[in-house]
Amino acid sequence: MTNEIKKPLILITNDDGDTANGIEVLTQLMMQIGDVIVMAPDGPRSAQSNALTVTHPIRFKKLEEREGLIRYSCTGTPTDCVKLALNEVLDRKPDLLVSGINHGSNAAINVIYSGTMGAVLEGCENGILSIGFSIVDHSLNADFSYFKSYVLQITRSALANGLPYGVCLNVNSPCGEIKGIRVSRQCVGHWDKEFAKRTDPQGRSYFWLTGHFENHEPEALDTDEWALANGYISVVPTKIDLTAYDMIETVAKWGL
Amino acid sequence: MTNEIKKPLILITNDDGDTANGIEVLTQLMMQIGDVIVMAPDGPRSAQSNALTVTHPIRFKKLEEREGLIRYSCTGTPTDCVKLALNEVLDRKPDLLVSGINHGSNAAINVIYSGTMGAVLEGCENGILSIGFSIVDHSLNADFSYFKSYVLQITRSALANGLPYGVCLNVNSPCGEIKGIRVSRQCVGHWDKEFAKRTDPQGRSYFWLTGHFENHEPEALDTDEWALANGYISVVPTKIDLTAYDMIETVAKWGL
Repeated sequence: MTNEIKKPLILITNDDGDTANGIEVLTQLMMQIGDVIVMAPDGPRSAQSNALTVTHPIRFKKLEEREGLIRYSCTGTPTDCVKLALNEVLDRKPDLLVSGINHGSNAAINVIYSGTMGAVLEGCENGILSIGFSIVDHSLNADFSYFKSYVLQITRSALANGLPYGVCLNVNSPCGEIKGIRVSRQCVGHWDKEFAKRTDPQGRSYFWLTGHFENHEPEALDTDEWALANGYISVVPTKIDLTAYDMIETVAKWGL
Repeated sequence: MTNEIKKPLILITNDDGDTANGIEVLTQLMMQIGDVIVMAPDGPRSAQSNALTVTHPIRFKKLEEREGLIRYSCTGTPTDCVKLALNEVLDRKPDLLVSGINHGSNAAINVIYSGTMGAVLEGCENGILSIGFSIVDHSLNADFSYFKSYVLQITRSALANGLPYGVCLNVNSPCGEIKGIRVSRQCVGHWDKEFAKRTDPQGRSYFWLTGHFENHEPEALDTDEWALANGYISVVPTKIDLTAYDMIETVAKWGL
């Protein structure tokens, strides 16, 4: 018998790549809580959703190993990173997966495009307590200083309380000072005017993804977008089961 | 006043690319129902989920135009295809988006990896009636003959009944003879033993994604996996809102 408390094993990834400030900050924070394994993409993989690499093989390599931390980089997507770590690196299931801190919002419908949240859904599918952290600032030099203590608080609270299978957390922070935390739902909205059209020197058109997010319910007080617009961190319990249960009976009545 | 019924405008895409048999079959079927615009990836984009192309620009080109059909190919992902068609090609919102017919199952957790269903979620986000069709056969020569009449039936029924904003359909067919249709829920399960590890001529390891799907609830009668294993087409009403509503109160009680 020993009274020693075993440190949690924490897997970290992101979609901004292994050199992003956000994952460096998250790694420093998680080392206060447990033993950390980082498996991050070897370059930017934003908006990779749950994409998997199937048309070519992937590789990973060890970047660093020291007390409480081993860091790897991987040639694949964020979801590939999680799969590789679970299947080929870790000798036991981690107690926690955290992804981020993403440079840019993953609130509202962005959750379905986000590589950060793709990795979180992957961890969740594998029965791991999984949390995505993002800040509403795309810049490389996003200021994480106000968010840090909340990242620790939310993580410790999740470890203490746990989540049922199939549920993870999508946590987004506003920039600057933070008023508190709102447990929210995913705001309804969509992206509009999505491309910048340009012409190459040969006279052919090409299209850059850009666009404007349109909030369909700006007055609703219980959404992630409302929280962020009003200085609060949003925490959205998020699930991997996409079934629209309330429509099963309706569609069954179509008489198919 | 005219009694002429306006034909529905139907947008078609897939993730197997513009030359796949599945999209050819789906195009022929949809031309029985409406005017068809195809915007498909110019090669395979399987398992691209809702990935977006953000690190480089994309292009599209017209492949064919004839009575009731215009076909384009696009250098991007399935979700890019939908965004390009909506923003840069169509002069009105289509009445229907169909994606597929995918060569391979998109049942259970595959829905979150699927490029076919990524395109469907994108249509759904844009307020378009959207349906993904897949068959449980990865081969290029998958036999769609038994599925065809059901694709028409499900599509016509969806057009007649409609779906609320944020809900789409994930339709999967077994191979061979079909017993009927089951409106189902997404089966709980996960992928296991996911990589084939090989060594290149320089002695370095590389990893091919493969794996085995483990059904966590093989006895449940209301899942898509059960339907498919028992000769039925599964129709899962699927939604773009990933909020775990039943966990909001629980997480709020953590006292964050």
